Amino acid sequence: MVSFESDYINGAHPKVLNRLVQTNESSQSGYGTDEFCESAKAKIRKAIGDEKADVEFLVGGTQTNSVIISTMLSDDEGVIAATTGHINVHEAGAIEFTGHKVIELGQKNGKLVPEDLKKYLEFFYSDESHDHMVFPGMVYISHPTEYGTLYSKNELKSISQICRKYKMSLFIDGARLGYGLMSRKTDVTLEDVAKYSDVFYIGGTKVGALCGEAVVFTKNNKPKHFVTSIKKRGALLAKGRLLGVQFDELFTDNLYFEISKHGIDMAEKMKKMFVDRNYEFFIDSPTNQQFVILNEEQFERIGQEIKFSVWEKLDGGRTVVRFATSWSTTEQDLKALEKVI
Amino acid sequence: MVSFESDYINGAHPKVLNRLVQTNESSQSGYGTDEFCESAKAKIRKAIGDEKADVEFLVGGTQTNSVIISTMLSDDEGVIAATTGHINVHEAGAIEFTGHKVIELGQKNGKLVPEDLKKYLEFFYSDESHDHMVFPGMVYISHPTEYGTLYSKNELKSISQICRKYKMSLFIDGARLGYGLMSRKTDVTLEDVAKYSDVFYIGGTKVGALCGEAVVFTKNNKPKHFVTSIKKRGALLAKGRLLGVQFDELFTDNLYFEISKHGIDMAEKMKKMFVDRNYEFFIDSPTNQQFVILNEEQFERIGQEIKFSVWEKLDGGRTVVRFATSWSTTEQDLKALEKVI
Amino acid sequence: MVSFESDYINGAHPKVLNRLVQTNESSQSGYGTDEFCESAKAKIRKAIGDEKADVEFLVGGTQTNSVIISTMLSDDEGVIAATTGHINVHEAGAIEFTGHKVIELGQKNGKLVPEDLKKYLEFFYSDESHDHMVFPGMVYISHPTEYGTLYSKNELKSISQICRKYKMSLFIDGARLGYGLMSRKTDVTLEDVAKYSDVFYIGGTKVGALCGEAVVFTKNNKPKHFVTSIKKRGALLAKGRLLGVQFDELFTDNLYFEISKHGIDMAEKMKKMFVDRNYEFFIDSPTNQQFVILNEEQFERIGQEIKFSVWEKLDGGRTVVRFATSWSTTEQDLKALEKVI
Amino acid sequence: MVSFESDYINGAHPKVLNRLVQTNESSQSGYGTDEFCESAKAKIRKAIGDEKADVEFLVGGTQTNSVIISTMLSDDEGVIAATTGHINVHEAGAIEFTGHKVIELGQKNGKLVPEDLKKYLEFFYSDESHDHMVFPGMVYISHPTEYGTLYSKNELKSISQICRKYKMSLFIDGARLGYGLMSRKTDVTLEDVAKYSDVFYIGGTKVGALCGEAVVFTKNNKPKHFVTSIKKRGALLAKGRLLGVQFDELFTDNLYFEISKHGIDMAEKMKKMFVDRNYEFFIDSPTNQQFVILNEEQFERIGQEIKFSVWEKLDGGRTVVRFATSWSTTEQDLKALEKVI
Repeated sequence: MVSFESDYINGAHPKVLNRLVQTNESSQSGYGTDEFCESAKAKIRKAIGDEKADVEFLVGGTQTNSVIISTMLSDDEGVIAATTGHINVHEAGAIEFTGHKVIELGQKNGKLVPEDLKKYLEFFYSDESHDHMVFPGMVYISHPTEYGTLYSKNELKSISQICRKYKMSLFIDGARLGYGLMSRKTDVTLEDVAKYSDVFYIGGTKVGALCGEAVVFTKNNKPKHFVTSIKKRGALLAKGRLLGVQFDELFTDNLYFEISKHGIDMAEKMKKMFVDRNYEFFIDSPTNQQFVILNEEQFERIGQEIKFSVWEKLDGGRTVVRFATSWSTTEQDLKALEKVI
Repeated sequence: MVSFESDYINGAHPKVLNRLVQTNESSQSGYGTDEFCESAKAKIRKAIGDEKADVEFLVGGTQTNSVIISTMLSDDEGVIAATTGHINVHEAGAIEFTGHKVIELGQKNGKLVPEDLKKYLEFFYSDESHDHMVFPGMVYISHPTEYGTLYSKNELKSISQICRKYKMSLFIDGARLGYGLMSRKTDVTLEDVAKYSDVFYIGGTKVGALCGEAVVFTKNNKPKHFVTSIKKRGALLAKGRLLGVQFDELFTDNLYFEISKHGIDMAEKMKKMFVDRNYEFFIDSPTNQQFVILNEEQFERIGQEIKFSVWEKLDGGRTVVRFATSWSTTEQDLKALEKVI
Repeated sequence: MVSFESDYINGAHPKVLNRLVQTNESSQSGYGTDEFCESAKAKIRKAIGDEKADVEFLVGGTQTNSVIISTMLSDDEGVIAATTGHINVHEAGAIEFTGHKVIELGQKNGKLVPEDLKKYLEFFYSDESHDHMVFPGMVYISHPTEYGTLYSKNELKSISQICRKYKMSLFIDGARLGYGLMSRKTDVTLEDVAKYSDVFYIGGTKVGALCGEAVVFTKNNKPKHFVTSIKKRGALLAKGRLLGVQFDELFTDNLYFEISKHGIDMAEKMKKMFVDRNYEFFIDSPTNQQFVILNEEQFERIGQEIKFSVWEKLDGGRTVVRFATSWSTTEQDLKALEKVI
Repeated sequence: MVSFESDYINGAHPKVLNRLVQTNESSQSGYGTDEFCESAKAKIRKAIGDEKADVEFLVGGTQTNSVIISTMLSDDEGVIAATTGHINVHEAGAIEFTGHKVIELGQKNGKLVPEDLKKYLEFFYSDESHDHMVFPGMVYISHPTEYGTLYSKNELKSISQICRKYKMSLFIDGARLGYGLMSRKTDVTLEDVAKYSDVFYIGGTKVGALCGEAVVFTKNNKPKHFVTSIKKRGALLAKGRLLGVQFDELFTDNLYFEISKHGIDMAEKMKKMFVDRNYEFFIDSPTNQQFVILNEEQFERIGQEIKFSVWEKLDGGRTVVRFATSWSTTEQDLKALEKVI
């Protein structure tokens, strides 16, 4: 059964896997002190155009969010996120587990609205009893968002300026960053992401790796004894090479961007297929996740041939479902889908 | 300067203080094992009409919320509260500090709406990926609420039934419980509070004591080794007698209810003063906290003679302010206020 | 039954209680912003001879240890304590509850040995894998210790120097500080405590107050937004005046030192009574806690007339028990004890 | 340079890696719901001879320790471990991060002594104030230990019986379990491990996998909503297949045991080489880690050709170093070592 269930349904991109095979017998020190990690870090620094950035590798997305947020916030602080933000909904309370509040703000198309952020901060600091409240210490945004949408460069810039003004960090969750950067409808570059954020990560799990996220600290702001804090959270991989090798390959010959572009090309074709057949979209997504509204008959029929994710039940028996493409989606997959929609 | 700033501006009710003086030289064991605590617990059990209830004393409101919620939730669970709930806004993240999420639901007049609660739970359990979400393990409501409003018996009953159905505890924050029970517009009794909740507390700090809240577990559900968990949270008072003596006196000869009634009588008089002068109210509160909207001139003028709390800025230079009465409010205080409004 | 069970068996010193009565009707703002707290802070600053020290009040000992340690350590750090340290044994894991390890070092007479501390630190920093270990960020000592013993000025100085060298804070738990300072066998003054430590507290609960500990930060090192962090831990008292009034009285006309001296005088008399009758001591304590070894017959006989604490079972049916004096111990109490030993 | 630095210096066993290649293009659901995980779980159940055991996969050792311990302890409980236990020394406080104390007991050859455990528990429950202490809720042992030593079946049985008596769980950290089971000097089988423990894990990272540990709950005691708790700790792998595929291969045709045996064979040969040359051993280890004492000249000389781990500095310029073999150690590696020792 062909699957558009998510962008982590397959193993690794063949080149990544091949590199693991080739390097398998090399003896390396553990915990990220191997030569592959070093090489990968250098390549990532180059890709973002910042030789001084600190790069660290972690295993997965929730882990990365939890480690970054909890090591960068101070005791009195929480993190601001959109109500739909992954850390607020689908991480089982991983941020709260570390003792910090997720401060919910409203969202529009899955995005935090700069004006809302500004209002919240003005309200907060005008409140006489704000020292009985959680101080806003960081803003979390995902790019692409959980709904596949993207911030414009102007939006990023605005949010970044607000963060500077209120001395908060801006953290960009880039679990699907590649698909965002390769979208046909974005003016945001990797350099922009590095410039406007204080810390962000380049997602590997959903873009060709078996696992792994590359965290980038861009403002000389890596937490003190960061390795110790990673270890303390059970997030330090013994064979750090597993992450180093994969990212080294992903950042060789533009592989990361090429396979992201492939995912986008597949998404655009898929989108057109739905558009041509007058399917209704739940949201207009310029990236690899497409949210389509199916009626009962469609839901039943398509579900017999194709795997997808169920997002939300609407009235009238309609359902929002997600079809995700990725680096591994094939023309054949699309044809199978086309046949049934 | 006369103060209506809050209901904790004065020391203790004279009878409570006097009892502390009288018992001062009695030697007692520490940590709540003294005879005053025993006596107070028995009186509270009698007052709620449940000889089997477990009663424990803690020092303050935030501490009580944090201890109760974090010891009654299991690892995967969070607590549902109204956006305006004290634990969600003004406790500096005390619940999250213990590793648990506060799950925000909308509010109406500071109250959780049974129907909203039901919808949320239906949505939660219908979501295929809800095991990536925080399980709702408890519902937190405050009675009176942060806006002085009260749940009706029917509302309490509905919420309680929903909790039973979804196997969640119902926790009633009674920091101002006395003022709720003595309100002229309530059909909820202390017995009802005990019956519909799984755990609640009877606030002492705001109702005549120097400090102290009496927690009541009504369903044979006191957490195992609760004293150890209290100690672990730095919440176990060495001289537990300080709490025992005060609650013993508060539950002697109906003192708790009488002084609560006095607070309500003062509030009703004060309310009438504002009504008679056509002041606008932010919300209709039947308890000891009255939220009045002042224009700039009023704000300035009254503020020179009377202390009050600033709640929220509205447009047009208007401000929501809170005037709180309590067991310690005097006719003289009201006269001073009357002169200036 | 006469009790030497602990130094927190009675209420408050009459002067302290009287002051609570006198100030009871004064209206004050909450959360420690009242005038009594301000006055008490000024008096404490004067007593330690440091006008710039930051003083804050908390309710009890375990709470104070937990708040101080968890707000002053960074994420990668733990606190070093003697195996017998209160935080390591009798606080139900309150430090670990905040996410930090108590690093146990051996003890001698209940005290941390400077040489042991030094060795541990040299070992730690020589270990190649110490970034997989908890960094030592603070040293915790109690003075007097849990066994009533005292550090000499030289010992304090040595430990302080080691802390400076390794960039660790020195935290002195002064739950019974008064009895230490008034001991007949100490060369340590309150000024020394302030000078050699980075933070310490002056215990009120065991020295004349109903509750309350005064935390002193002596190196311009009060954590940022400390009130928020206190609130987050459920440790912020609404009626902060309860602490302010008590400490204001304790630091008026040397009351704190006088009543501590009384406790010591009583302890010395008691000690002599045991010495004269050839009782064996478990440890030589120069403060208000005396640890005596009783045989079965003595244990039985004395226990029928006098309350004491059981410390440890030794072989041969012998038991280590503690007799504690305090500001509230009377000559009459001593006579009752003398009759039966 | 030939390395005996650790047992995680190489990638994966070729068969494991090959299996990853073969399964790479198969589409699978995420988060451990894939068919490889199912198959691997079934094979592990069969290997331990318990069809009802619950098996779950996690990524690494510290993570596994932290997840298991923190989800199985109740709020008032801590975990007992030897002073040398990995969770007590080299996990950067990962257990304390979750709010639980590691209760240190002395060790002999890296092992917890049943008699010491018994004494501690008798002492604990005889202490009148034990409700101010951390309740012992679990015993943690590693098998093999951090010093390569092994518990005998009798020792395991004794510890298990003590745990049953005091209602504690017994958790066996099997990060190197294969090398323990294949040791020439053990009477402990995999079935014994399952029988005597309440939960244990089969280490993959150090025995042929790129990463991964298989947790086995043997007493119908998997924590409720365990997936949620894993997610909450940032430990849920999106591509759970990565773990499933590897363990499925490791438990096909006895691979796990065969490659463990190879590691042991290599260790025994290596050990003989040192014995034959009269090197002094720090401890007598029957598994894949050998601890040898080198003098300055040896340390220098061998270090130029061979990588090893530095364990501890002794007096007289001597150093304890660790030489670890594994599934990936070759005869050629041994020859290189032999040449230089």
